[in-house]
Amino acid sequence: MQDGEPKTMTAVRKAVVLLSGGLDSTTVLAIARDEGFACHALTFRYGQRHANEIEAAKRVANAAQVTEHVIAEIDLRVFGGSALTSDIAVPKHADAADLGDGIPVTYVPARNTIFLSFALAWAEVLGACDIFIGVNALDYSGYPDCRPEFIDAFAAMARLATRAGVEGTSQLKIHTPLISLTKAEIIATGVRLGVDYGLTTSCYDPDEAGRACRSCDSCLLRLRGFAENGLLDPAQYIVAGAG
Amino acid sequence: MQDGEPKTMTAVRKAVVLLSGGLDSTTVLAIARDEGFACHALTFRYGQRHANEIEAAKRVANAAQVTEHVIAEIDLRVFGGSALTSDIAVPKHADAADLGDGIPVTYVPARNTIFLSFALAWAEVLGACDIFIGVNALDYSGYPDCRPEFIDAFAAMARLATRAGVEGTSQLKIHTPLISLTKAEIIATGVRLGVDYGLTTSCYDPDEAGRACRSCDSCLLRLRGFAENGLLDPAQYIVAGAG
Repeated sequence: MQDGEPKTMTAVRKAVVLLSGGLDSTTVLAIARDEGFACHALTFRYGQRHANEIEAAKRVANAAQVTEHVIAEIDLRVFGGSALTSDIAVPKHADAADLGDGIPVTYVPARNTIFLSFALAWAEVLGACDIFIGVNALDYSGYPDCRPEFIDAFAAMARLATRAGVEGTSQLKIHTPLISLTKAEIIATGVRLGVDYGLTTSCYDPDEAGRACRSCDSCLLRLRGFAENGLLDPAQYIVAGAG
Repeated sequence: MQDGEPKTMTAVRKAVVLLSGGLDSTTVLAIARDEGFACHALTFRYGQRHANEIEAAKRVANAAQVTEHVIAEIDLRVFGGSALTSDIAVPKHADAADLGDGIPVTYVPARNTIFLSFALAWAEVLGACDIFIGVNALDYSGYPDCRPEFIDAFAAMARLATRAGVEGTSQLKIHTPLISLTKAEIIATGVRLGVDYGLTTSCYDPDEAGRACRSCDSCLLRLRGFAENGLLDPAQYIVAGAG
């Protein structure tokens, strides 16, 4: 990120930024930094099948010069129930137009609730009132915990959950700068802020070298987003192509 | 628990029960079982300093013949900020009358939010609509996440967070059967349901053998609760006494 220096030098506020190492959360981190927050990045090792997500998060956090990067260990595999944490196959499609309706099998039960809860804990310890999360209500309309009404309900709960909640002084805000953007708009925002998307990984089913499959929902949405900007996706793919 | 057989043999509903191995959650498990639920007990290894809590939870789950007992690993120490997960000293008092006002240093930031979020994930995988938690608004009035308004806000959020939330059909309920009971009333309830409180542990600062200190907030509240019932606490204490 070349032009992402904080805009204000006085009273720098701390923010907790959820960072998966994917395209969306990397863009959110750039936005939070651009808004002048001292960013505390939070990544989860949660039994997802691909350690390269963690490596991508480290690369991104380093490039964004975050104040601190915590990788929290949680094991969602104990509950099962998702293609991303159990043995259910990741669905493949030939084209983004094939993406189904409804809740994808890649939905992880209550994942964003859990992630935001950890972010809330860290925010309280830091004395931070701002949490950033890269949920998106368009491309991931099937995920219950990416909807604005869920985020609003979480924020209402969170303002009661902490010390400041008892005192009635909680200023907690959940920032969702991507919630109504298309993937193409997200990419355009990140490019404007100097994000190097070559550091990120989005694929649900990469090969052992971490190269993306080009045919899972996440790859198809990403490739379409770059194409709509007239850009090449700098991510590495197993099969060469126009993206 | 001798008389805790499920009251109904038809259409047994599943419940997720948060179980720490302490007096309160053990009583809640007995209540859930008495109400006819098939109980799925959930315990966290969260960087608390005393492994004997986990052992107590195993003993209790076994005695209560739960359907399943999951011990989930999470590490709240990465955030610090509490006497139960970092190096802040546990406060000691001579008597329960000395217990302070305000939020105790033993408060773990956002702990119940995190615990309930995991319970929500498991409930969704199980197809369960019922979560039990042993929060108490009297003895732990200083904890923000033990208040009824917090629980209500969490339930509202949780009903939006899952697949059933998208469909508008969520029946999710957070059961807090202890929320308005005194410690003495909690103990009386458990005794009536056949709970063996000798299996439980409550002390914030036990010795290496797992014996309770008799002077932390948790010990003092527990001892007073047994005394008010005219009962001896069957827990093992370092120093012998009337409790």
